[in-house]
Formats: sequence, C-alpha cells, structure tokens
Amino acid sequence: MKMSKMLMPTLREVPNDAEITSHQLMLRAGMIKKMSSGVYNQLPMGLRVFKKIEAIIREELEKKGCQEILCAGLIPAELWKESGRWDVMGAEMMRLKDRNARDFCLGPTHEEVFTDIIRQEINSYKQLPLNLYQIQVKYRDERRPRFGVMRTKTFTMKDAYSFDVDEAGLDKSYQDMFEAYTSIFARCGLENSPVQADSGAIGGSTSAEFMVKSEVGEDEIVFCSGCDYAANIEKAESVNTVPAKEEMRELNPVHTPGVHTIEELETFFNVSADKFAKTLIYEADGKTVVVLVRGDREVNEVKVCNAIGEVIEFDLAREEIVNELTNAEVGFAGPIGIKADYIFIDKEVAEQSNIGVGGNKTDYHIQNANYGRDFEGVVGDFRNVQKGDKCTCCGADLEIARGVEVGHIFKLGTKYSETMGANFIDNDGKSKPIVMGCYGIGVERTAAAIIEQHHDENGIVWPLAIAPYQLVVVPVNIKKAEHMEAAQNIYSELQAMGVEVLLDDRDERAGVKFKDAELIGIPMRITVGKDITEGKVEFKLRDADEKELLTLEDIKSRVESEFVKNNVKLG
Amino acid sequence: MKMSKMLMPTLREVPNDAEITSHQLMLRAGMIKKMSSGVYNQLPMGLRVFKKIEAIIREELEKKGCQEILCAGLIPAELWKESGRWDVMGAEMMRLKDRNARDFCLGPTHEEVFTDIIRQEINSYKQLPLNLYQIQVKYRDERRPRFGVMRTKTFTMKDAYSFDVDEAGLDKSYQDMFEAYTSIFARCGLENSPVQADSGAIGGSTSAEFMVKSEVGEDEIVFCSGCDYAANIEKAESVNTVPAKEEMRELNPVHTPGVHTIEELETFFNVSADKFAKTLIYEADGKTVVVLVRGDREVNEVKVCNAIGEVIEFDLAREEIVNELTNAEVGFAGPIGIKADYIFIDKEVAEQSNIGVGGNKTDYHIQNANYGRDFEGVVGDFRNVQKGDKCTCCGADLEIARGVEVGHIFKLGTKYSETMGANFIDNDGKSKPIVMGCYGIGVERTAAAIIEQHHDENGIVWPLAIAPYQLVVVPVNIKKAEHMEAAQNIYSELQAMGVEVLLDDRDERAGVKFKDAELIGIPMRITVGKDITEGKVEFKLRDADEKELLTLEDIKSRVESEFVKNNVKLG
Repeated sequence: MKMSKMLMPTLREVPNDAEITSHQLMLRAGMIKKMSSGVYNQLPMGLRVFKKIEAIIREELEKKGCQEILCAGLIPAELWKESGRWDVMGAEMMRLKDRNARDFCLGPTHEEVFTDIIRQEINSYKQLPLNLYQIQVKYRDERRPRFGVMRTKTFTMKDAYSFDVDEAGLDKSYQDMFEAYTSIFARCGLENSPVQADSGAIGGSTSAEFMVKSEVGEDEIVFCSGCDYAANIEKAESVNTVPAKEEMRELNPVHTPGVHTIEELETFFNVSADKFAKTLIYEADGKTVVVLVRGDREVNEVKVCNAIGEVIEFDLAREEIVNELTNAEVGFAGPIGIKADYIFIDKEVAEQSNIGVGGNKTDYHIQNANYGRDFEGVVGDFRNVQKGDKCTCCGADLEIARGVEVGHIFKLGTKYSETMGANFIDNDGKSKPIVMGCYGIGVERTAAAIIEQHHDENGIVWPLAIAPYQLVVVPVNIKKAEHMEAAQNIYSELQAMGVEVLLDDRDERAGVKFKDAELIGIPMRITVGKDITEGKVEFKLRDADEKELLTLEDIKSRVESEFVKNNVKLG
Repeated sequence: MKMSKMLMPTLREVPNDAEITSHQLMLRAGMIKKMSSGVYNQLPMGLRVFKKIEAIIREELEKKGCQEILCAGLIPAELWKESGRWDVMGAEMMRLKDRNARDFCLGPTHEEVFTDIIRQEINSYKQLPLNLYQIQVKYRDERRPRFGVMRTKTFTMKDAYSFDVDEAGLDKSYQDMFEAYTSIFARCGLENSPVQADSGAIGGSTSAEFMVKSEVGEDEIVFCSGCDYAANIEKAESVNTVPAKEEMRELNPVHTPGVHTIEELETFFNVSADKFAKTLIYEADGKTVVVLVRGDREVNEVKVCNAIGEVIEFDLAREEIVNELTNAEVGFAGPIGIKADYIFIDKEVAEQSNIGVGGNKTDYHIQNANYGRDFEGVVGDFRNVQKGDKCTCCGADLEIARGVEVGHIFKLGTKYSETMGANFIDNDGKSKPIVMGCYGIGVERTAAAIIEQHHDENGIVWPLAIAPYQLVVVPVNIKKAEHMEAAQNIYSELQAMGVEVLLDDRDERAGVKFKDAELIGIPMRITVGKDITEGKVEFKLRDADEKELLTLEDIKSRVESEFVKNNVKLG
C-alpha cells in the first residue's frame, strides 16, 4: 500500500484522555478512533492488527477440530428467560424492543444461542463431541468504560462452546482449548499465565483465565513463588494464619468513644490489627449480609456472593440498614447478637481465640469474643489473599501482580443444557444432558496487551506475526528519481514475494517517515537514500538499534530470514 | 474437513415456512438457522459461503485502492441528529438507551459515522481522494422480514464511502465502484444488470442498483427491449401516451349511483379506462396529497414522495379525510375545486382533453374535464411504467421483470458533508465540502441470489469460486479398508494442494452421501468404490451428468483443470 493514499492519522502528542500506554499508542498510531464513551471505530492499521489476531485464533482452533459459525448479535429475550439469565444480567446487558415491542438483547455472550442451536440439531451421542466457535461483536454496557479497547461497550470476541457426552469428554475439550489458547497467545508474542478463576455469571465449576502480566491490568493475580499455583485474586486461597489457641476469657465491653476504624482500635487498645475482627454489612438484592474478616484482612466480595448463590446487586449497606441491624452508629458493628439474612465468618476469625469485635452499641467494643460461644455464622474463606500469605499447595510465599485477562475458559457442565433441555441419546439408550464448556478471547484487548508488552519510547514494536504491515520502504527524497524508482522496485518485488509492505511515498522529510514507521511499529524498514548510487540500501529492524547495509540482491534473502526466524509464513 | 465431525444438518423435506428456492435450499443444506423472525444464525456451510463472497468483495475493492475499516454498530444519536436523520428514519431503525439513558441506534447504514471520521481526519485536498469500506452487520427492523436471508432484521453489508474534492472526482470514484461491482458479481457467477434507481432515504442525485433478475425478486425492474435503458420501477420513466388534442367540451356532471371503481365507470359510460383520471388522496406526515393518474395507470408513490421532499409517513388517506376533502363518500374524488396541501397531476392527465373525473359529490362523476381550465396542480411524472410502454431513450417497448437488489451505488454529493461540516481546504485555499458517494452490497442476499440462479431439482450448484468446499471425496463403504484408505489419501493429497475438500467418512449409504453432496452443491465429487482395485475412482462435476473414470495419478491434474477453467486460485 502506498502511504500517500492511506488513512493513517498518526499523532505526535500523547492524547489527554488516554491513561495507559496501549491506549495512547493505539490512538497515536491511528489504529482506533473513539466515537462515544467505550465505543471505538477501527481504522485501517487497527483493523489489520485485529484481523491478524483473528487469523491466528482460527488456525489454532481449527487444528483442534473446531468449526466456525456466526450467530446473530440480536437475541430474542425468550432464550435468556429460558436459561434464567434475563433477570440475572443487570444493566450491563443492552436491551431493546423491536417494532412489535418484542424484547431483545444485544448478546453480551452466547451460551443460550449456542445451546439453542445444539438442542435442535444434536440428538445422538454419534454427533458428539462438537466444538463450535464464532468471532463476533459483543455488547456490554460497562459502568465505566476505560483504557481504550481494554474495557468497552462493544468489542470483538472469539467465543467457543464445546459439547460432550460426559465429564471425561469435557475434560478433553477443555484441555484442547487450554492448549489452543497457549499456542494462540504464544504466537501473538504474549508472555501469559493461565490462572484459576472465578466462574462469575457464566457459571460452571472449573475456569481458568489467561492473564498477561501488566502494571495496568485491571485484575490482581496471585501466584506462588514456590510452585506453579496461580489464581485470580477473586478466587485465590491462602493458608490460614492463626495464633495458638488460648483459653477463652470473659467478654469485656469497653467504652471506646470516637473509635471507629481498625487503626483507631490499634492505637486505643495498643495491640495489632489481627487481634480484632472487622464486621462489614452488605445488601445483596435486598437481603442483609454480615461478613467478618480479621482486622488486617480485606473482604473478598466475590467469595461472599458465591456463598449466597446468584446475586445481581451487591453493595455495602446503607447507613440506615447498619443502624437498624446494630442499634448503633456506623463503626460499631459486631457479630454478637446481630440478626441478618446471612452471616459469613472467615475461617481465621472462627479459629482465633479472644478476638476484639464491635459492640453493636455506639461507642462500645467488646474484647474476648469467641466463635461458637459468643457468635455463630457460616464459616468459610471470605478474605483476599495478601502478599506474603502462604500457598495452600506448597507453603511458599504468595506474590501478587496485576494482569490483563485476554482469555477465559470455563467448564460449564450441564448448567445450560439442563435448563434449556439440550439432551442427547447416549449409547445406552438413555437421554442425558449435553456436557458443555465455553471459551472466550477478547480480540482488541489481546492487541492492547501485546502493545503493553511490546513497545518502547518511540512507539509500538509489533511481533512480525501481528504487525499491520511487515515492512516499510522509505525513499529518503521522493523528488529524487533514483530514490523513488529503486523504492518502487523494491516495494513491487517484496509485494510479489508475499510480504505485506508499505511504500512511504509521502512528500515528507525522512525523519517524519522514520518516526511514523516506529510509532506504528512496522518490524522491518528499508531506506533508499544516497547509497543507492552504489546499489545499496539500509535495512533496519524495529527492535534493533543497528542498521545493516544491503545490496539490492540481498534484500529478498534478508527479509525471508526474518520470516523464518519468527516462524511466520510469507504471503 | 471430515464430515463425521461437522455440524451439517441437511434436510430431505422442504421446510414449510420457506417460500422461495434460495430460502428452502439454504435451510435444507444446513447453511442457516432461524433464531427469530428475520434473525438467522449462520452455520458452518453458510458462513463459508458468505466469507467467500466477502473475500471477493475485498479483493475487487482493494484493486481500486479502497481501504477497509470497521465502525462500531452502536451509534450515538447525536450523529444522526446532526445529519437530521434521527427523526427521518422510522421504525426501521432500532434504537436503544445505555445505562445512562443516552440514545443510541444500531447502524442501519453508516453515512454519518464515516462522515464523522473523515471530518476529523481530513483537512486538505492532498489527503483526497479516499475510499473507505467496511464489511459489517447492519440492523434494520423490517416491517415484514421474509424470504430467508433476502429480507432480515440483521445482515452483513459491505458499505463503502468515497470522498473527493469535486464532482469530477466523484464521477471517477463512482465509475470505479461501478466497475468493481461488475467484477464482484461476475466472479460470484451472477448475471446481473445495473439499473437506474431512486436514491430514497440515503439521498443524493444519481444512483444505480445491481439487480439479479429472479422471479422471486421483491423489486420490479423496467428494461428496454431496444436499448440498454434499465431502471427500478420506482424510478423508471416512459413516453407519455396521449390521444390527439380535441376541442374542449363543456363540463358535464352525470349521476352515477354506486359507480366507484374504474371498471364500473368503463361499464357505465361504455368507454375505456384511459378516458378517465383516477384521483387518489394520501396523507404525508399529516399533510393531504391529491394525485391524479389516468384510469389505466398506477400511482408511483416514490415519485410522489420525491416531489414533496422528505416524507416519513406516507399512506392512503383515512376515510374521514377523503370525506372532508371531497364532501362525498369514498369513490367520487375528483380534481375540480378540491383543496389539499399538495395536488400532483400526471403529465398524461394534464395533456389529455375532455377527461372523466370524480364529481366530489356522492354518486356523481363529471365528463369533459380539462387541465388548466377546470383544475390545476403540479404536473409531472407520477405513474408507474407498464409493460409495452415506450422507452424515453429509443422508443422501443419496455419490459418488466422482477429482480433482487444485491448492490446499490449512490452519488451523495455534499448532502452529509454540508450538514455535518466535513470540509477540506482546496488547492485554491478555500474551504469546501467533501464530495461523497456511498456503495453497498448485501452479502447474504448475494448468496441467496446466487442460489436462485444456480440450482437444480437436487439442490444448490455452487460456482467453484463460492462453494463452501470445492470437492468431496466419498468412500462408498467406510467399512471397506481399501475404500477408506484410498479416500483418506486422496483427501490428504488434495488438501495439501490447497483444495478445500470434504471427506464423507460418515457411516451412511453412498446414496445418502451423494444426495447430501448434491444438496449442499459441492462442485466436484470423487467417489472411491469398487474400481479402486484397479486404481481408479469416479470423478463427477455437480453441473454435469456424465461421470469420468480417473486413475489415481490423474486426479490432481483433473482437479487443477477445473480451477483453471473457472479462474479460481488454489489454496
């Protein structure tokens, strides 16, 4: 492509509203253009990158026998009502009515639609296993779209769904997808780690997220310094740290005027935070929820919601609710005598003797509370892992890093097939629900993660497999016939070889052209300048400092060697 | 692909709800699956066909220097309000609100979005011309979805937009797209005719539709038997047929009790329909519209709307409106003395002497009415062309055929750039509005049109360039090792050659496999049966009756020859 004919609006300045590197560079390289909050148009450079990622996804999935289909994005409400998710999905699901006032949604995910297709077409074990996928636009009305294409209202997703006769089949399908994902992200040049994850609204038993470690990631990942345990913070567990059992002492109410926070308690009583329990009060779909964790811990709200079951709205309780439950001002809630729809107690609190708690009376706390004797509730893991906690697998220290989720795989089991009646006749003649898995990759987000891992101060440094164009030919001065002619010839020859090549035939200074090529991240650059009189050109890799002087005859083999080195096919 | 692993739900029976051949065959060949009225999911066989069409579109557009982008389907209302179309688009545009109650629509077309991108990025004539396209899902809430993928609520459209400095540039861009479209439809195996068309809600001056003649087409096309004039019935014109002028006679009211229709008038007065004028009364956005055409003619409502300007709601007037305007029952409307917001008189009526009209009085008609003396109004072409009318270009007979619109190209001019402020600085230093064109192709509809033109009693007969798979290898009996082994080998070798090949390894009778292959329309079939003992297989083209016996050595060259013959690239 000749750059003079392209829509390629590069920017020198960093846009004000872009906080993270990938967002800044996508805007500066002219890849995307914002239309509305969380809604982007994809310009030529961006679209080419996204299509490269899609092509890699297709290749790796088809190696595993997956077949591509394409479902409509406009989904009748009936299907979501059948699965029960029409009401479960909150404001994130975009809903609309057609001219006949029928309800539809714009698919935020497609479990229902795939299950509906399958229940109509599959009736025998002979037709299974099957793995269907699509690469399609999803709609999610994010509360807070941000970070460019990382979190948007509309984005491209590859979603795959596997259909098996039993759990063993699902294990195989899940493993196949695990391998495919590993290959896909490796080919994208991403260092990534699969981590255990919470299944969230999708449901199901086992799930893993493919996380790209990145300081700008919205997720926290817990990983072990001693073994390969890794999990999303929402899911991660650690060994309980509990001091030795003491004999239970008597409850001791203490007047603590103005002492509300754990820090104030530490000062007032002159003991450390782990000697107290925090009592937090939430509202979950109108029900009251009391949660206790130790004073040095944070509540893990996902674990709490999972313990309740399906929860749509979950938030800290309003002041009047706290007042009502505790008969006190905010800041003095405690477990003793409290009544709520749910009471959850973190294991560490349950196991610790003589813990300090709120008094359920304004300006009072109580010392020496003991689970079982003084208060009751459902005991479990309701806390976040913290750095330095011990691994439940090997006992080594746990670390915490930030990550971007680029893929997510789920064992759904029979959640959808049972509610929607997707059954098959097994070889024993019995009707059974199909066992399902589902598997997603965010396309634009993967591109953003690649940029987070592959950039320098001058711009993007695309891996050859992902670059929008693989090579740019830069004539130093387009007004010099010898520059332009040679550049044109090189451009045509490389094109004929199957290289995706740009010719920077713009009437700009060489410096401007170099800057744009670096910003956009083209992996190879051939500069045609004064050396052309001796039949030589300059060859430079985007990720190398040195320039090489090549004869015209050597260009092809030099370029070819980069394709071999990067394991990328020509043409 | 091995057919035993595929989702390929073929049907022997013709589905009840499918009226036209392409719809029946798409369902029977397992290409598509209905999810809701006018909403289809695309199964593997369908998606592959649609992607073939998309690939051809991309190749031909890129030959013309067009660049692909991808706009979001979710469009903020602001852009449509700027262009003025938020109110103009009726119930066909699907609208929704986000969680913050901001208005969006699902793009039925993308003039506003492309104009918005361009006005932000283009400021100099040096950046023009430019032609951008996307292949994207469109949403149109059709009043009456029907004929499978021919008329749906959501479908894939290639829409391109050209941006030029002046009309001459637009002419060139329009011509380029005209040529690209001609190549695209030819490569799709479609006999098609570009016809003059009305520009409708898109606006602009010149427009042409690419029509595939088909008995099931929803459009009527007028074409000349003598020259290459062709136009959509909405736009088509014909020579006025007017009898010789007579001297004006005196108005003669006649008592015509119970005589309402043209047929009843013919009988009552014993003269032919062309001696009367029909007076039709419409409501257009609350205004009254009177239209006169001759008794043997039909009103062309598109021409009437164009004469008014922008019209959203247009329908025959309610009875009370007719009564009010005519002071009479329905059936006696006439032009004499009538008052309305608009009065349109077809040229034939205006030119004819002593015509019969309704009396604007119940049970009365009036003879010898003459335009100018007895009634007034805007004179123009407000009638449909009829078969046998004469061509305005050459005078030969006009014919009428039905057609399917697969593409539509428009000269928009500055309609959008002026309302939305998409200007550039020309080389004379002056700011001017960008001159635009827009160009659409319906992808699924093109596939349906191909089927309408390429099928027989056994199923689809895909052109090699469009077929979901190009060849199927059928082992007659999968339990015979020599059949399966040879079939596997042929399958692998053809795959390695780059042929898109199916292996029908299903445990079915050969007859079932042949029927499926014919139904799906695979262009080439290789059958491995008893002749394999002599190293021979049967080769059959889908569109030929005879079978050829080939040695194993000859297979590759025989297959290759079909690619050459059909001008389709391998791999």
